[in-house]
Amino acid sequence: MTKKITGIAASNGVAIAKAYKLVDPDLSFETRTIDDAQGEKDRVNAAFLASKADLETIRTKAEASMGADEAEVFTAHIMVLEDPELLSSINDKIDTDKTNAEAALKAVTDMYIGMFEAMADDNPYMAERAADIRDVTKRVLSHLLGKDLPNPALINEEVVIVAHDMTPSDTAQLDRRYVKGFITDVGGRTAHAAIMARTLEIPAIVGSDVATKDIDENDMVILDGLDGDALILPSDAEIAEYQQKGRAYADKKVEWAKLKNEKSVSADGKEFVIGANIGTPKDLDGVIENGAEGVGLYRTEFLYMDSSELPTEEAQFESYKKVLESMDGKPVTVRTMDIGGDKHLPYLPLPEEDNPFMGYRAIRISLDRDDIFRTQLRALLRASVYGQLWIMFPMVATLPEFRAARDIFNEEKAKLVAEGTEVSDDIKLGIMIEIPAAAVLADKFAQEVDFFSIGTNDLIGYSMAADRGNDRVSYLYQPYNPSILRLVKNVIDSAHKYGKFAAMCGEMAGDPIALPILVGMGLDEFSMSATSILQARSLMKKLDTQEMAQLAEQAVDSETNDEVIALVQANVSVD
Amino acid sequence: MTKKITGIAASNGVAIAKAYKLVDPDLSFETRTIDDAQGEKDRVNAAFLASKADLETIRTKAEASMGADEAEVFTAHIMVLEDPELLSSINDKIDTDKTNAEAALKAVTDMYIGMFEAMADDNPYMAERAADIRDVTKRVLSHLLGKDLPNPALINEEVVIVAHDMTPSDTAQLDRRYVKGFITDVGGRTAHAAIMARTLEIPAIVGSDVATKDIDENDMVILDGLDGDALILPSDAEIAEYQQKGRAYADKKVEWAKLKNEKSVSADGKEFVIGANIGTPKDLDGVIENGAEGVGLYRTEFLYMDSSELPTEEAQFESYKKVLESMDGKPVTVRTMDIGGDKHLPYLPLPEEDNPFMGYRAIRISLDRDDIFRTQLRALLRASVYGQLWIMFPMVATLPEFRAARDIFNEEKAKLVAEGTEVSDDIKLGIMIEIPAAAVLADKFAQEVDFFSIGTNDLIGYSMAADRGNDRVSYLYQPYNPSILRLVKNVIDSAHKYGKFAAMCGEMAGDPIALPILVGMGLDEFSMSATSILQARSLMKKLDTQEMAQLAEQAVDSETNDEVIALVQANVSVD
Repeated sequence: MTKKITGIAASNGVAIAKAYKLVDPDLSFETRTIDDAQGEKDRVNAAFLASKADLETIRTKAEASMGADEAEVFTAHIMVLEDPELLSSINDKIDTDKTNAEAALKAVTDMYIGMFEAMADDNPYMAERAADIRDVTKRVLSHLLGKDLPNPALINEEVVIVAHDMTPSDTAQLDRRYVKGFITDVGGRTAHAAIMARTLEIPAIVGSDVATKDIDENDMVILDGLDGDALILPSDAEIAEYQQKGRAYADKKVEWAKLKNEKSVSADGKEFVIGANIGTPKDLDGVIENGAEGVGLYRTEFLYMDSSELPTEEAQFESYKKVLESMDGKPVTVRTMDIGGDKHLPYLPLPEEDNPFMGYRAIRISLDRDDIFRTQLRALLRASVYGQLWIMFPMVATLPEFRAARDIFNEEKAKLVAEGTEVSDDIKLGIMIEIPAAAVLADKFAQEVDFFSIGTNDLIGYSMAADRGNDRVSYLYQPYNPSILRLVKNVIDSAHKYGKFAAMCGEMAGDPIALPILVGMGLDEFSMSATSILQARSLMKKLDTQEMAQLAEQAVDSETNDEVIALVQANVSVD
Repeated sequence: MTKKITGIAASNGVAIAKAYKLVDPDLSFETRTIDDAQGEKDRVNAAFLASKADLETIRTKAEASMGADEAEVFTAHIMVLEDPELLSSINDKIDTDKTNAEAALKAVTDMYIGMFEAMADDNPYMAERAADIRDVTKRVLSHLLGKDLPNPALINEEVVIVAHDMTPSDTAQLDRRYVKGFITDVGGRTAHAAIMARTLEIPAIVGSDVATKDIDENDMVILDGLDGDALILPSDAEIAEYQQKGRAYADKKVEWAKLKNEKSVSADGKEFVIGANIGTPKDLDGVIENGAEGVGLYRTEFLYMDSSELPTEEAQFESYKKVLESMDGKPVTVRTMDIGGDKHLPYLPLPEEDNPFMGYRAIRISLDRDDIFRTQLRALLRASVYGQLWIMFPMVATLPEFRAARDIFNEEKAKLVAEGTEVSDDIKLGIMIEIPAAAVLADKFAQEVDFFSIGTNDLIGYSMAADRGNDRVSYLYQPYNPSILRLVKNVIDSAHKYGKFAAMCGEMAGDPIALPILVGMGLDEFSMSATSILQARSLMKKLDTQEMAQLAEQAVDSETNDEVIALVQANVSVD
């Protein structure tokens, strides 16, 4: 009998393949006193060699599928195995303590890990060294115990991945040729794994609770990322049915693809802008492939996070220039550094905070550490001549914060001009609206900024006082709650009252339930994952702005999130 | 030359006295190998006896000034010293290791502390045992090293306390006869220490940054809690000047005291309600002394926090009955359990959370653990016949949450009635407004609740996305930010549109800058620390509601927090 489990539909499409469980095996062992020390030392040596062979294969595959940068971590792991001191310490431990290979390995590597972690406060690289040793120990231990560690980078047949959760390093190792989709136990539509799945355009289901329990290795599985259903050991009839559903979705994608070079326009001819959210210049291919009309959010924190020190003005300039040039005159909205909260830099230690989301982050750091901020603004100013640059400040709560940031911008601009550097005179300055206080006071902000960009993920989190990453309260992450819609409407109306531009760059902008309401409210720009653009453009074409304005009025006058979903579903054919 | 330092004026009045530094001495020591083991054992024994003598004196003083409950912690400390195993372990350690008394004491107590802490996960009382041993060790060590530990409970002359911060256990030991005021390095107006100072009615300055550095033990100090200035080693002329300022304030308090039995009424005769916030029935004396017209907030979490297990229905019933009876028919607003965030119960383990303020707390726990919630509601329902009971639910973000809580209340009411228990038919049900989403959607809530009570501390925190306990962002705790005032106004207007009652129970209700604006907005009830009531009533008498309504209009149309402060100061004589 087919077993069906249901989770959150996180990325569209249908996948049918064997399950590959990305779940660590049980690596527990007994500590034993041994007689044959040489035998244990031979076992360790063999496990080291086998681990090294694994890692070399993985590195080669990773280089081929993802590039040398992504594969570098495996070089670091191989270097750990090649360190003669590590192996000889383990051998000594076996000789001295007459203990088995597993226990000696664990004792020695724990000691190294402890040592590196103790140094990590002064030197953040020591924390990475500790993590490398931990990873390598796991692999050597798996060989000693004769258990298979999952090696996603080595997958060479079509599979769907079954995991408790997918970390960024898990998703980095996925080969799109073979990985047809994935299903996880935990997570929501806006978690990292779900966003990655949409970027990779593979179907995904998250938050199933039971996937790793109910699905066995090699089980045939149908993943329906459109409705969030997974069928385990399906019948032939079910396979045929879902193959048909997958083809229908693929056909729809072909239709959407035809919209690539078209404008984003409603049924009654009103033009909107659909932009893309990017993290690095590498994301530009997807942006251009999907016909974005601009970059609505360039998250510059990756420049800081992917670096081992503060990125120089020059390095930043090159990145910004690349993005501006590639967009060929289309607007590019760059968000200044949004560090803090859950994003940390090894070289910029931040205080431990009880509630980091309500702490020292983003513009709060930039205004406090204006040395870092000025470097970023100078790089942006210098790049501004290569395209149409918009700059926005994240986490602005009060007008004095915006004014202080603007003053610093103007100072750096004046300095560059005085130095004879060419800068654009048409850079727009705006703010993210993601703090409730700023949304409420939008009419005051609108008199001073050039544009708003509503960051719905945080705005919803603060407005509902709920951390969407916290499973116990994630039910309060309600994008369609009328309170959120009222704040959004206030921001859009305030912008327009003063002739300013209102954009949105949170997950909500690409959401088919929210989009009709936002069209009705007259949002100017919708910025979203590149892979959502064509579907959004297709949906927009079917919407009449007058009808949607009425729908939006009803939505803001509703009582609950569920009521708004039902309202949209009753009035708009979302597909 | 007098040195002047300035901090945050946290509690009104002027104190002039010698400084008593509540700062731990340096208790570091060297570990030495010793020859005379008996000599070291004698030293330990003497230090134990001296510590015990200290603690017995402290306990006697504490019992007399604060009651037996507060003094119990010292009994626990004495019991640690009387444990024969502890002393004999230290003696053994000296014999075996030939180590000095300090090192032996530390080694043995560290071992005990480690052991108790390891058990603390299964048995929360072990954590308290560990804390007791830590405190006692500090005291014994101070005797061994011949250094004086500050003993605030032993103060027997007039002093002003100088401390880095004041913890709840520090303030619990203060004797009001001798402690004339305090000044701390850290903290803000709404931190625990500041609230305690206002409850004790002693002048206080917090957040001075430098008090413990700039003030030496026994320095004469003037603390001006009205303006936040501290004068170190003042001249005679300065002492005379501040004595005069202190007398003027005392005179004003005499004037305020005359208002105890008067109504809370504006200059033009509009009646308001001024209520008191309480934590336990013990606070009722202050409530009645200060002429409160009701209890606007009874924080029931103390019932849970002061207990070693979930409080029974019977224990809760007794507390609620006591408060209702004491208030003699005046309304008592009870807030159901607000656990979570920064408030934890040893017997109800909550998940570790990255952002507890945006996590599993208050009504979210009550709806999830309705067994606990039903017990509380039953106790309240049974007590309802002894007075005028209002019940409110904390941290409500959505209408379905309020409806679910109301349904549970009605179920328990029906059960009690069916069981033949008498319950009031006139219990009002309301919600705290402390989550921005609820403030924005107040018009919808107003159609279903009987009343609102605005909890400004959290409302400001979430609206500004800033944890007021975090020094790096505490500048964003802006009660007068026009965005906050707009949310407050929306709540009041929405309540009145549907004929409902609007109260406020956050710090802001008793704030002399906010009060004129709130009078202008037509807030129905102001609930505050009991000691703020008479001053608030005095201020209210001077305000014209029409003028204040205009002031409120200007305030909500302002741009910044500072602008609103200036506006009120220019229009109202606040004293």
